[in-house]
Amino acid sequence: MKEISVDWKEKILETVQRSRKESFNALNFSADRKNEFLSILQKELNRESSRIIKANRKDIDTAVKKGCSSVFVDRLTLTHERIEKMIKAAEVVKNLPDPVGQKMWETTRPNGLRIEKVRTPIGVIAIIYESRPDVTVEASILCLKSGNCVILRGGKEAKHSNRILVEIIKGSLNSAGLPGDMVNLISTGGRKAVKYILSLNGYIDLVIPRGGESLIRTVVNYSTIPVIKHYKGVCHTYVDRDADLKMALTVSFNAKVQRPGTCNAMETLLVHKDIAEDFLPDMAELFRKANVEMRGCERTVRILKDIKTAAEEDWGMEYLDLIVSIKIVDSVESAIAHINRYGTMHSEAIITENRQTAEKFFKEVDAAALYHNASTRFTDGGEFGLGAEIGISTDKIHARGPMGLEELTIYKYLIYGSGQIRN
Amino acid sequence: MKEISVDWKEKILETVQRSRKESFNALNFSADRKNEFLSILQKELNRESSRIIKANRKDIDTAVKKGCSSVFVDRLTLTHERIEKMIKAAEVVKNLPDPVGQKMWETTRPNGLRIEKVRTPIGVIAIIYESRPDVTVEASILCLKSGNCVILRGGKEAKHSNRILVEIIKGSLNSAGLPGDMVNLISTGGRKAVKYILSLNGYIDLVIPRGGESLIRTVVNYSTIPVIKHYKGVCHTYVDRDADLKMALTVSFNAKVQRPGTCNAMETLLVHKDIAEDFLPDMAELFRKANVEMRGCERTVRILKDIKTAAEEDWGMEYLDLIVSIKIVDSVESAIAHINRYGTMHSEAIITENRQTAEKFFKEVDAAALYHNASTRFTDGGEFGLGAEIGISTDKIHARGPMGLEELTIYKYLIYGSGQIRN
Repeated sequence: MKEISVDWKEKILETVQRSRKESFNALNFSADRKNEFLSILQKELNRESSRIIKANRKDIDTAVKKGCSSVFVDRLTLTHERIEKMIKAAEVVKNLPDPVGQKMWETTRPNGLRIEKVRTPIGVIAIIYESRPDVTVEASILCLKSGNCVILRGGKEAKHSNRILVEIIKGSLNSAGLPGDMVNLISTGGRKAVKYILSLNGYIDLVIPRGGESLIRTVVNYSTIPVIKHYKGVCHTYVDRDADLKMALTVSFNAKVQRPGTCNAMETLLVHKDIAEDFLPDMAELFRKANVEMRGCERTVRILKDIKTAAEEDWGMEYLDLIVSIKIVDSVESAIAHINRYGTMHSEAIITENRQTAEKFFKEVDAAALYHNASTRFTDGGEFGLGAEIGISTDKIHARGPMGLEELTIYKYLIYGSGQIRN
Repeated sequence: MKEISVDWKEKILETVQRSRKESFNALNFSADRKNEFLSILQKELNRESSRIIKANRKDIDTAVKKGCSSVFVDRLTLTHERIEKMIKAAEVVKNLPDPVGQKMWETTRPNGLRIEKVRTPIGVIAIIYESRPDVTVEASILCLKSGNCVILRGGKEAKHSNRILVEIIKGSLNSAGLPGDMVNLISTGGRKAVKYILSLNGYIDLVIPRGGESLIRTVVNYSTIPVIKHYKGVCHTYVDRDADLKMALTVSFNAKVQRPGTCNAMETLLVHKDIAEDFLPDMAELFRKANVEMRGCERTVRILKDIKTAAEEDWGMEYLDLIVSIKIVDSVESAIAHINRYGTMHSEAIITENRQTAEKFFKEVDAAALYHNASTRFTDGGEFGLGAEIGISTDKIHARGPMGLEELTIYKYLIYGSGQIRN
């Protein structure tokens, strides 16, 4: 057993070191070359789609035999349509400007030193995720277009799917004259492998976990490498005293119902006490028609008599389902305090016609995205015009909100001198 | 014992929660108010300087009794001159523009949503440092000016000094109408307290460790909060075949000798083989006169016969002293490969008159600051024109190189709608 254990560690280390080595070369790859890779990848995904689906079938069969849930199997499943979606994603990323080499700032110092701040790739990025083979392709193309190398660690249930997808990505890199080692899949070593990967801070520059909260907490607890993540999205909509109530109905309904399983869906509706009696019955009717379960605070339950009373745990709960908690608040201040206490700093909306109230909300709520008179569902790289996103960050360093290509870069300072020395 | 242990944890948690609470208010403080605080702080540090020195005396006496090294005691010591330096630092920070509220980007989407990306404070920043009371003031003023709350955890040997300094900072905050809880010192709980602080990821947004490598490694290993740091600075100067050799002498000498104990001082000199015989004897003469110990590769030792042969451990060693390792390389490619292997991604210089060679070096070396014909000693917030720095990062997310006020902020997206919903 011991020898086997040494063996997988060595294998992982050797793989990661190969990626690290290529990351230095990758600092220098042109946008044209990287776009050529994306074009080839599109063709290859199309050409190989039946083989991909066949490999995926093996994973599905095993998952079904093991009794995995239907939601799990659905996420694992690749179809021609889903492969088409990957090909489209590659098209979007191909059309995005390459951030590498962009000059962000420039200055000339009194001693004549000229300093430029220029965007560069981050280096080696590890993606730790669950059994979603679409992430294999979508995360890779974003990392690669921004000049980064990628270590992929997907769920073992997707191993056949991931293997063929990574084989296709590597082949496409090679055909474009880029090193195949820019992407590597690590599927050995079980859970210990994840811990081991997270200890390799000399070779990996950033870890992006994608998946459920428990996966993300595990990554954060073990990693000695910087991690960017969001645990969950507990988003609120606050309907102010000065709201246009018709708009409030439409926007709140959309935020809850349009796609309740996403992190930017609303979980809690906050309503100003002065308009609660007018607003809540209409809101409740819409929710009822859409089969949304409502859980109200004591004051809410006095107005909506037939709904459940919310427990303390309901505030701050990410339902990811057709459930909403409703609370009546005394003021915008109370709404802000509630959100800063129970929110997850993701997406928060205020519905009001009062500009000053909206401004206060924008200044004092501590979240990645704040909405005035719009649905929280817009927090998304595509909707923001970033083209694509590798995820959404609720961290407060590096990147907050949707992370696109630019957020997969860092910078270096280039200093041009003529023999300057420090006194 | 158990009760005592619970007691310090509760005390720390309660303190950190107070800071977290104020961090929401601090999102909103005006530059004028923060500058008023800095003016009051300047006056108070001046007025209280004798009391500060008296408190510091207690710490010094204990340290001397305990047999601490003279370097340690020197770093611990406060004098009127050093307090004057703190007051000047406050002046510099006061004159810097407040980054909070700056618009970084703006777009209007086809659906009419207007999106603004606006700088905000990070929130609560913990500074974990050793027994240097000057850090107490300098880190605090940078964090506070950028609208952040600060948790200070300094070395226990500086406890009397830190206590009075934090008392003065709190008093100055209050006099300016700002909450004293924007800064809090945690001095209970011993080493376990540091571990506990590093687990409070729900309340602290960022940890900045300042000190030796072992302190920083401990912080990285235990923290579940994002950390920005640099372990050490192993900086190189590469003297190219096409270098102006006179310039190479001056710049290399400055990089090594001007202040060898700093992280941006040169540790290794790389010399192109074609100019080594011309260059090295003159360089060695200068180093010898300045009492610099030289350790050369085998080829170097053939030219400089009386110097020590470098061991493998010399490459990548941070001497922080008048010691330099010297290696002859075959090409700029070998120099780049050496630096990417042994360097710490801090500051790297090339001396050459060949623009193309310099460009290659700039593209392919993976470091925070790259110098063409200038000394690595310029990597410094002041020298870069950032006004002041809280430290230098060799990380590759959020901030790289000197971290000033801007690097102590993040952003939020503000989205202005008129009832938009997602389809």
